[in-house]
Amino acid sequence: MIRAGVVGATGYAGAELVRLLSGHPCVRLAAVSSVSFQGKPLSEVYPAYYRLCDMVCGTQEEVVAQSDVVFAALPHGLSQELAKECFEKGRAFIDLGADFRLENEEDYREWYGGTYLYPELHEASVYGLPELFREAIRGKKMIANPGCYTTAVPLALAPALKNGLIQKDSILADCKSGVTGAGRTPTQNTHYPELNEGMSAYKVASHRHTPEIEQSLSHVAGEKVKVIFVPHLLPVNRGILATCYAKLTDSVTMEQIRDAYGEAYGGEYFIRLLPQGRSADIKNVRYSNFCDISLHIDHRTNTFIAISAIDNMVKGAAGQAVQNMNIVFGLDETTGLRIVPPAF
Amino acid sequence: MIRAGVVGATGYAGAELVRLLSGHPCVRLAAVSSVSFQGKPLSEVYPAYYRLCDMVCGTQEEVVAQSDVVFAALPHGLSQELAKECFEKGRAFIDLGADFRLENEEDYREWYGGTYLYPELHEASVYGLPELFREAIRGKKMIANPGCYTTAVPLALAPALKNGLIQKDSILADCKSGVTGAGRTPTQNTHYPELNEGMSAYKVASHRHTPEIEQSLSHVAGEKVKVIFVPHLLPVNRGILATCYAKLTDSVTMEQIRDAYGEAYGGEYFIRLLPQGRSADIKNVRYSNFCDISLHIDHRTNTFIAISAIDNMVKGAAGQAVQNMNIVFGLDETTGLRIVPPAF
Amino acid sequence: MIRAGVVGATGYAGAELVRLLSGHPCVRLAAVSSVSFQGKPLSEVYPAYYRLCDMVCGTQEEVVAQSDVVFAALPHGLSQELAKECFEKGRAFIDLGADFRLENEEDYREWYGGTYLYPELHEASVYGLPELFREAIRGKKMIANPGCYTTAVPLALAPALKNGLIQKDSILADCKSGVTGAGRTPTQNTHYPELNEGMSAYKVASHRHTPEIEQSLSHVAGEKVKVIFVPHLLPVNRGILATCYAKLTDSVTMEQIRDAYGEAYGGEYFIRLLPQGRSADIKNVRYSNFCDISLHIDHRTNTFIAISAIDNMVKGAAGQAVQNMNIVFGLDETTGLRIVPPAF
Amino acid sequence: MIRAGVVGATGYAGAELVRLLSGHPCVRLAAVSSVSFQGKPLSEVYPAYYRLCDMVCGTQEEVVAQSDVVFAALPHGLSQELAKECFEKGRAFIDLGADFRLENEEDYREWYGGTYLYPELHEASVYGLPELFREAIRGKKMIANPGCYTTAVPLALAPALKNGLIQKDSILADCKSGVTGAGRTPTQNTHYPELNEGMSAYKVASHRHTPEIEQSLSHVAGEKVKVIFVPHLLPVNRGILATCYAKLTDSVTMEQIRDAYGEAYGGEYFIRLLPQGRSADIKNVRYSNFCDISLHIDHRTNTFIAISAIDNMVKGAAGQAVQNMNIVFGLDETTGLRIVPPAF
Repeated sequence: MIRAGVVGATGYAGAELVRLLSGHPCVRLAAVSSVSFQGKPLSEVYPAYYRLCDMVCGTQEEVVAQSDVVFAALPHGLSQELAKECFEKGRAFIDLGADFRLENEEDYREWYGGTYLYPELHEASVYGLPELFREAIRGKKMIANPGCYTTAVPLALAPALKNGLIQKDSILADCKSGVTGAGRTPTQNTHYPELNEGMSAYKVASHRHTPEIEQSLSHVAGEKVKVIFVPHLLPVNRGILATCYAKLTDSVTMEQIRDAYGEAYGGEYFIRLLPQGRSADIKNVRYSNFCDISLHIDHRTNTFIAISAIDNMVKGAAGQAVQNMNIVFGLDETTGLRIVPPAF
Repeated sequence: MIRAGVVGATGYAGAELVRLLSGHPCVRLAAVSSVSFQGKPLSEVYPAYYRLCDMVCGTQEEVVAQSDVVFAALPHGLSQELAKECFEKGRAFIDLGADFRLENEEDYREWYGGTYLYPELHEASVYGLPELFREAIRGKKMIANPGCYTTAVPLALAPALKNGLIQKDSILADCKSGVTGAGRTPTQNTHYPELNEGMSAYKVASHRHTPEIEQSLSHVAGEKVKVIFVPHLLPVNRGILATCYAKLTDSVTMEQIRDAYGEAYGGEYFIRLLPQGRSADIKNVRYSNFCDISLHIDHRTNTFIAISAIDNMVKGAAGQAVQNMNIVFGLDETTGLRIVPPAF
Repeated sequence: MIRAGVVGATGYAGAELVRLLSGHPCVRLAAVSSVSFQGKPLSEVYPAYYRLCDMVCGTQEEVVAQSDVVFAALPHGLSQELAKECFEKGRAFIDLGADFRLENEEDYREWYGGTYLYPELHEASVYGLPELFREAIRGKKMIANPGCYTTAVPLALAPALKNGLIQKDSILADCKSGVTGAGRTPTQNTHYPELNEGMSAYKVASHRHTPEIEQSLSHVAGEKVKVIFVPHLLPVNRGILATCYAKLTDSVTMEQIRDAYGEAYGGEYFIRLLPQGRSADIKNVRYSNFCDISLHIDHRTNTFIAISAIDNMVKGAAGQAVQNMNIVFGLDETTGLRIVPPAF
Repeated sequence: MIRAGVVGATGYAGAELVRLLSGHPCVRLAAVSSVSFQGKPLSEVYPAYYRLCDMVCGTQEEVVAQSDVVFAALPHGLSQELAKECFEKGRAFIDLGADFRLENEEDYREWYGGTYLYPELHEASVYGLPELFREAIRGKKMIANPGCYTTAVPLALAPALKNGLIQKDSILADCKSGVTGAGRTPTQNTHYPELNEGMSAYKVASHRHTPEIEQSLSHVAGEKVKVIFVPHLLPVNRGILATCYAKLTDSVTMEQIRDAYGEAYGGEYFIRLLPQGRSADIKNVRYSNFCDISLHIDHRTNTFIAISAIDNMVKGAAGQAVQNMNIVFGLDETTGLRIVPPAF
């Protein structure tokens, strides 16, 4: 059994990790930590886990000491020291935060206001979006787990971009996120009466996931790609819907597009390419690690529209982290993640 | 007092009209009709109206006979005969359906599958989006009341388009609608457990409002304009959020944009141009006739983003119909519509 | 015009008062105050009010100085000094908090942990539930405005109790409240993802409204009455549904019950006694001052069931406060409150 | 592997069965049937199941032919013929409908309007609420699976009733149900805009689950017990919250109560007796087979309050059916049902 530990277990991503790891057949949850709730059982914070995960929150140090793999679900900026400790002690390290996601430190400085403390760790780490960069992940022990938008948008567009079916300078992603994406801390705009029956965009064209999306798409395209990215907050608990637009290159047909997506994703368990005529819905992927993708063409304007839906807490966070752990430990990638999404 | 009648009073738009007309100081609700509920009091269909509007649903003929102004809230295709009857009897006629919205019969045939039975009525009618086409409305008695998306998108973009600030061939509208937009008839996809906690696009790049949006924008631009239009269904009761994108023309600044919008809408009671830094939210316009608009630039990609929010049942249907009635009858345009939207 | 001021205008009850007073034909909103947002326009806190109520929040003293009637929407315990100031300056004073609701100081001490600073003010004040105690209100200038549960439960049961149709020692109220009842301050249990799709009871048999409900019912019954009262938090914004139970006295019929309710409430504009066969729904009273009541008998157990529905922010707070103001100032009681509730 | 079949697989209970059976380690889903969708893959009806359960809906006969255990998720009245067929062919039969739940045919006639076609089948069947009647289930092959309310209410009250801690003639259950309880067929009152932001009681004191609740409680009490039962419809997808009230017998303490519940449920995996001070919340049991129970006393009125929360589709339908199957086939009762409920 792999001994797994979660640092930051009382945030939403951490709590979701605990849930998924509890059901993983090759994992024993070894330790959890929380600064805010140290000394308290996790089930006191999340009564849903009562009698199922009553493990008491300890310290970060305890987690590192007792685990083969350490998952970090920390606010941005707090992962680097922990990564170093794991690195030195030979622990596998999977970071759900942003500290190791951007290859270019300049981007990190500009969008997050931080610096890279240990460049060698950034060298040793790899960006863990398996469906696009699986080969790079194998053999690594330090994984930068992608964010939610940064999973949904690249998966929606990669095959079209890679195959030259869309114009690289025309990409636009209008995204809609469930509220768990805003984290566990209560704020005015996530207070029930103010969010319920509302909807608005936020951080318009200024969200931190922008450079991360561009980084992945640029790798796929083989050249620098920019995107217009506008996120919206949606009155549902879970889910990212990414409606992605790009101009088609000349005389591209839906058949060519479906061929490209079929080739890219035909063997991917977690990507469900929907039959023509359906439209991806966050409803259908909740609580699962699936990414549903539907493909559309606006013939009137020669525009390609790819819509992807994921559960932001699973494929957009904890589920993908487990998927990465499976790769790191040489397990079948779907182990512990073969969940049938509830229909309602 | 103006005697007002509503044909199709038991659909959502009709019922909302009844609510607004009941609070209008210059109007007496004279008659309502419904094919499905003829002979039943309206408050039996909508218990919220109990003891406030217990008027019994009669026939279309009765409405025409007893009203100075007839509002039609009928399924598309059923308004033309009623329009003719009103025309012949000298009634003002305000149609909340689509039969008179498209100037080009070819568009109507292509998108709605119908034909124009009485071309002279189409000559006599006018498209009732007051903030853009007010002068054309004055003096007319037959009004084609715009749809919800077709109010939100043109209002968001018109000043930028008119002033040449955006590229005409780059317009994209990613829209999100509350469920009342789907009407009162229960369907599988509006069944509570299937829509709740879900979100998806529908009629991707094929929604009937496309030619209507293009018609308004083309009038504003002075030339034929095409748009990419994708609507989404949102798990809230009311509201349209239109996130509209277009490439800026060379070296346009936010100052120029705000000047253009200020000039266009500075005198408009129902348009609230939000202060820089805010983002339009459907929450803030519910139950009111306001259209909130926020303006943004993505400097990285030189893209203009205008976001508009309306209540689809009010500014997107019944409220705008009353606004049009006010114009037709020479009243102050805001009469009966000076509603403070509830904050929660 | 009556000059009205609101102390605590940025809480939910205060903000709702502003909305209702803005639409009142005999009132001019003279001043608003807020400790948290002093110096800021109200519309910055509630963007729904943008351009409609941009009044800047001042101090409590300014409100008293500029108003004929002062509404207090303050946390419990903070009203007494303000009441004294209003009393001395001859202002009418309507308190939406609990400081003046309980006639028995002992109850106040037990349930709120406070004392009565100015007994003469408590003498001068009156409990403002017009449908039950209207005569006592006339001529008074200091009104203790009832809470939400304490409006819904007594209105549901009073006629049955008064007419001896139910057993006084068998009363049970199982109540369900929308989230605005918890106020504007974000907390963990009102954080959207934790409340959404959930439901639970809170303060089981220990809610502070218990003695207030009992006080009103005891007045009606003419003797001390106790109730079992359990509130629940409901994932909706607005509304109280009070499902009230009591054993019928011997051989009471529905006809007798309806007679009693008809006699008590037949002339009450704000109480809608529903036709037999319907069940009160919070949906139908939202944004209005109505209290819908449905009456049922469980013949198998000889139990009376009365269900009342109100909007907790209107009839349960701000609307009733305006109704009380209308009485104090000799206006028609429904002035400014003849609102048709939206059907959806 | 047990070959399991589901008759009526496209209703909500049937679809949930498919989801749970798909994750059961000792079961192979052998066949599904649907009258409405015969010939169509289940994933066309429920896109959440795409590529996970694309099994084509066949006929009832096919299900019986190919299965060791047949689950029936049919409208009331349609199970008796199917039961007979299974009985004759030696199939285990688990009925999620009501046809075999009531021991007294007279009750069935009164509440469901049907008759017992094959009395011997009613002799052979047993009521499958394991935590109360486990011993009776062992060795049986025909199980009447309880309904949702009829699981939640008896579990909440049984230990108190059995131990004489409450007065048998004072039981009242005020219940709140998620919308999936109303089934998959769209209706006006489950149409999203009409249910959202609303709440009301329905079938007040006349719901068909009443005699079934009384039957279980009467068995526990050893004498005929009546209950006041009022269900409410709640704007959430899943969950039953049962707030149950009864007068305490003389001088009963919380310690006695907790002892009784501890003794009754201490060994029950699926019942979580909450620590004193917490209140059961449907949030915490969603998608799982748990029944959370919290215990309260209103000392002012000497009233016992037990609140239970279940997922109506799992412990209130499909999960309990699987639990019963596990008993019938001699498996550990929790097999396939050890699910950690999601925290959000």
